[in-house]
Amino acid sequence: MVVRIGVIGTGNMGADHIRNLQRFVAGAAVTVVADYDQATAEAVAAESGARVAENGHALIADPDVDAIIIASHDSTHYEYAMSAIAAGKPTLCEKPLAPTLAECEEIVAAEAAAGGNLLSLGFMRRFDPGHTELKAAIDAGVIGPVLRITGASRNVVSYPGTTSESMITNSVIHELDSIPWLLGSPVVEAAWLAGRASSKVPAGVADPSLTLLRTADGVLTSVDMYANAEYGYDLRCEVLGEKGTLSLTDPALVAVDLGLKRSTSYPLDWRPRFAAAYRLELGAWVSAVAAGAPTPLATAVDGLAASRVADAVLTSMHESGRWVTVAR
Amino acid sequence: MVVRIGVIGTGNMGADHIRNLQRFVAGAAVTVVADYDQATAEAVAAESGARVAENGHALIADPDVDAIIIASHDSTHYEYAMSAIAAGKPTLCEKPLAPTLAECEEIVAAEAAAGGNLLSLGFMRRFDPGHTELKAAIDAGVIGPVLRITGASRNVVSYPGTTSESMITNSVIHELDSIPWLLGSPVVEAAWLAGRASSKVPAGVADPSLTLLRTADGVLTSVDMYANAEYGYDLRCEVLGEKGTLSLTDPALVAVDLGLKRSTSYPLDWRPRFAAAYRLELGAWVSAVAAGAPTPLATAVDGLAASRVADAVLTSMHESGRWVTVAR
Amino acid sequence: MVVRIGVIGTGNMGADHIRNLQRFVAGAAVTVVADYDQATAEAVAAESGARVAENGHALIADPDVDAIIIASHDSTHYEYAMSAIAAGKPTLCEKPLAPTLAECEEIVAAEAAAGGNLLSLGFMRRFDPGHTELKAAIDAGVIGPVLRITGASRNVVSYPGTTSESMITNSVIHELDSIPWLLGSPVVEAAWLAGRASSKVPAGVADPSLTLLRTADGVLTSVDMYANAEYGYDLRCEVLGEKGTLSLTDPALVAVDLGLKRSTSYPLDWRPRFAAAYRLELGAWVSAVAAGAPTPLATAVDGLAASRVADAVLTSMHESGRWVTVAR
Amino acid sequence: MVVRIGVIGTGNMGADHIRNLQRFVAGAAVTVVADYDQATAEAVAAESGARVAENGHALIADPDVDAIIIASHDSTHYEYAMSAIAAGKPTLCEKPLAPTLAECEEIVAAEAAAGGNLLSLGFMRRFDPGHTELKAAIDAGVIGPVLRITGASRNVVSYPGTTSESMITNSVIHELDSIPWLLGSPVVEAAWLAGRASSKVPAGVADPSLTLLRTADGVLTSVDMYANAEYGYDLRCEVLGEKGTLSLTDPALVAVDLGLKRSTSYPLDWRPRFAAAYRLELGAWVSAVAAGAPTPLATAVDGLAASRVADAVLTSMHESGRWVTVAR
Repeated sequence: MVVRIGVIGTGNMGADHIRNLQRFVAGAAVTVVADYDQATAEAVAAESGARVAENGHALIADPDVDAIIIASHDSTHYEYAMSAIAAGKPTLCEKPLAPTLAECEEIVAAEAAAGGNLLSLGFMRRFDPGHTELKAAIDAGVIGPVLRITGASRNVVSYPGTTSESMITNSVIHELDSIPWLLGSPVVEAAWLAGRASSKVPAGVADPSLTLLRTADGVLTSVDMYANAEYGYDLRCEVLGEKGTLSLTDPALVAVDLGLKRSTSYPLDWRPRFAAAYRLELGAWVSAVAAGAPTPLATAVDGLAASRVADAVLTSMHESGRWVTVAR
Repeated sequence: MVVRIGVIGTGNMGADHIRNLQRFVAGAAVTVVADYDQATAEAVAAESGARVAENGHALIADPDVDAIIIASHDSTHYEYAMSAIAAGKPTLCEKPLAPTLAECEEIVAAEAAAGGNLLSLGFMRRFDPGHTELKAAIDAGVIGPVLRITGASRNVVSYPGTTSESMITNSVIHELDSIPWLLGSPVVEAAWLAGRASSKVPAGVADPSLTLLRTADGVLTSVDMYANAEYGYDLRCEVLGEKGTLSLTDPALVAVDLGLKRSTSYPLDWRPRFAAAYRLELGAWVSAVAAGAPTPLATAVDGLAASRVADAVLTSMHESGRWVTVAR
Repeated sequence: MVVRIGVIGTGNMGADHIRNLQRFVAGAAVTVVADYDQATAEAVAAESGARVAENGHALIADPDVDAIIIASHDSTHYEYAMSAIAAGKPTLCEKPLAPTLAECEEIVAAEAAAGGNLLSLGFMRRFDPGHTELKAAIDAGVIGPVLRITGASRNVVSYPGTTSESMITNSVIHELDSIPWLLGSPVVEAAWLAGRASSKVPAGVADPSLTLLRTADGVLTSVDMYANAEYGYDLRCEVLGEKGTLSLTDPALVAVDLGLKRSTSYPLDWRPRFAAAYRLELGAWVSAVAAGAPTPLATAVDGLAASRVADAVLTSMHESGRWVTVAR
Repeated sequence: MVVRIGVIGTGNMGADHIRNLQRFVAGAAVTVVADYDQATAEAVAAESGARVAENGHALIADPDVDAIIIASHDSTHYEYAMSAIAAGKPTLCEKPLAPTLAECEEIVAAEAAAGGNLLSLGFMRRFDPGHTELKAAIDAGVIGPVLRITGASRNVVSYPGTTSESMITNSVIHELDSIPWLLGSPVVEAAWLAGRASSKVPAGVADPSLTLLRTADGVLTSVDMYANAEYGYDLRCEVLGEKGTLSLTDPALVAVDLGLKRSTSYPLDWRPRFAAAYRLELGAWVSAVAAGAPTPLATAVDGLAASRVADAVLTSMHESGRWVTVAR
């Protein structure tokens, strides 16, 4: 059985998903696409052999669509997710689940009322081979009980209009999902602080910043965020256990010795870094959809959990860095 | 269009190809399998949903088979390759093309007589992301004209019955293809030498050994082979250019600090190391077959070239390490 | 001119200093030693050719002693430092300057009253080639203005009786000196927090812990302390600037590939890690003493500053992790 | 007792030795210097507080000189070494012992006739912490019996007038000493070959080149020499044993992430790379001289051995790369 997929949003993320589905995922066909910008949708459709739907809702309703990917603007996630649940079609929604906590909660409730197992969230780190190897080693007890996690997340340059808040909800949100996933323990408390800001951001924007998390197992996690790091897209994670540590290595494949330097390269953004993760995530999703099995991806409940932690981080940000309890 | 694939040989290599085709390659279906050991074939068929053919020739003739993978014992490559050419079906043959030079030449001639572009050779390094990045950097002139290549190929333990000769024809053969591919220049001369042998090999077997190659562009390449390295499956390559060097990095994804050591892990054999390469190779092959396009894999002519170099290396081995001209 | 040195305290640290002076420092002679344990003093004296003084005060007064090293128990630093100042002899005191802030202040005042430039503090990181290269790169503006520092300090096992407080005053104290030294900016505020504790420490002891520092330039520094890390003595430091980062590398000289691992070794304690630093520190001190020049080591004022920050960290520890202003 | 040292040759190498002796070696005093260029000698003397001798022979005879360092031009080594032997004064001679084999043999015979233990050779790699750790691990059997050594020696740019031959006698000569030292087995056979030459060297000069050595224990060693590598001064060594490998690591202390690269730095020449080795070598030599103990450095016999291997390499170079037996 071939899963016929409709993709809402044909910008960078959506177009990447389509290419990955067409090259690296068995048993999938991209049949219909839709985008706010009709011209973009038509260009992608022409390249991929898909048909263009009038809009996302029409795509969801289309009889040639078995399953849906929502890769459109964050502000549209809520309405498309609700529409897909109503249509009873399995859906992979890019993070965040929805812009507000109330919307996330509404989606989770609607999905549960519909019988569950419809929504999957695009927290692709869960499929990154480095992260899965970290998790396997933690679970195997290689380093003993985990005591600390130290993460760093750095982008080359922030989007125009980026705020201290949006760095949490757009970037750090990945750690807000991956940390409890790695530990098998929910985040119960969060704090946020910042020091000297880069001269590259407008006054009032905090970059870099430091997010602190406490999970139910007592582990303290710190996440260094720097959205204008300039030097490269860089993601680091060290997990300290009672008797040892685990760290992601530099993923570069080739070292270059030139001009009195030995160097490896950083990518410009997250996409080359997580290329394998996206392919494995899409493959796992398509297999589960085809088999009618529970999604192996993050669920709507996970998406809601991450958004609740983000909310606590923002509260701390606005209240002098105090520790804030995460809503359950 | 889905390419229906028949796989001859369902041992480790063939079974891996089937799993990869079914998970990571769009547009392919494994329809028929065959193996010398009928029970193995049936087990793989049951798992994959394919049908079992009576033998390789029956599989080649099967109307449900559009394209063929030959992953059976080296000694059978010649007859199946000739049969597939006669049937006019695109075929991916694991290396070596055939055990003898005469057979390789016969296959190349038969394929040419049949109009060409039927055979692809499984030199998967051409699809390894590290190797393709090396080649791209060479071609971009990053290090200037290449002057030297230093390679090392190490296995944990050799198969029973491994000889000094079979280490060349089974293992070093990969470098005999990848070096001229990296350089865009054929190997014109080869030599072989060895020093102290491991106590783990029988008397008369040389392990480790050193193979020297000279390409038409004058570049001198040395390949260190050690089939009983014990410490891990390890593949190294350094390319020295006029103004810099390129090297493959340690591909491990996670570092572990434990017991007064900081370490990364080696795999037990080549399969984890080249997992991505196999997937990309199969995907590229299936796409080309579907499109009727020229194969982007190594061709029968490349396979013959590598075998001719291997032949020169063996002559050097038997004639005191003298430099031997490669037949054209 | 040969500087004749008296060493008070001939335990591990003092004995190391004597060996370093005798092998790697030109222009120095160890003439007199003293120790609480007379037998230890005599053994070291026999090996080094020095004479044994009755006690530290006798050593300070000895006419064959031009300059003094205080490497005895922390609790004795105050009295020997005061005695050395009274004698007007240049003195290298191991950290801490003294156990209490009041004593540190008294020493600083006494030294100033005596004309200054008598005391040097053994914050050897200022002479570690990795740290001096970090500082040089910061000062050269390689990464732009510094925004964040992330440090980690890990010991294999803590001494019996180690407390949450003593990990700060004995171990983290090094960062409390090196961070303002690296940045050229004093620490103005500090906080302390901890999460899940290792099962290896008694109830009530926090290990690992996280110390946060804010320097006058606004830079936020975090120092991860884990006294029972088991995996090795490990010291890490990353300095994040506006446009790049600087990090200390793994200082191991040899990689070993064995048993499916590629590894480097950690030392059991800080002494191999800082062997070069100690030699360079002693050499710089002896040269300055011989020349009557200002000490290039940390001064008593630096030692007082570090102790004041430690005091703020302990206050935070005892007051729920709140940010505490450092006394000036 | 202070060893009073006279230094012949106050160019880069000699001046470095003087600075090292004056800063990092206990028990040594540089009392007299001499140089072909009187002005250079006077400048160095003024800086170091030494006296200038009229020439090397006067320095050797000087009553204020207990021991001698010969750091003058290679062409003068023979006469000064013979003169120092005649004077019965311990002497550290920079490599090579002498330009011709006949001279080396004459020096060895003269030293033996004088009772031995006068000459030490400046093969400083024997004191490089990385190399001594390699040797200790080999001797401890960490990797089992050694089977292969792979070395690479690269300079940024060659001196004007450098020839294929001088790269062996000036640079590869270090490996011709360090390999038998590491293995505890003399080189019995050598060969030389080259491929495509850099466009930066004059026609007829081979750069890079590959030197092959066979030691009495059967181990095959290859040494890659590239005198115009441009990218940095780089020295690599991998020792392959039956069950594992040992490799020198990248000795850089700080990693820099900047401009889409993560990099470490190469030095411009060998001096920063071997700074610690030179200090340790000088210290060990001075200690042995002071104690009248056998030199722990390479001896004149070692220097002769290395020159005999160099001679065999040059013969191979001039005779089509054939294997040449080393004279004993």
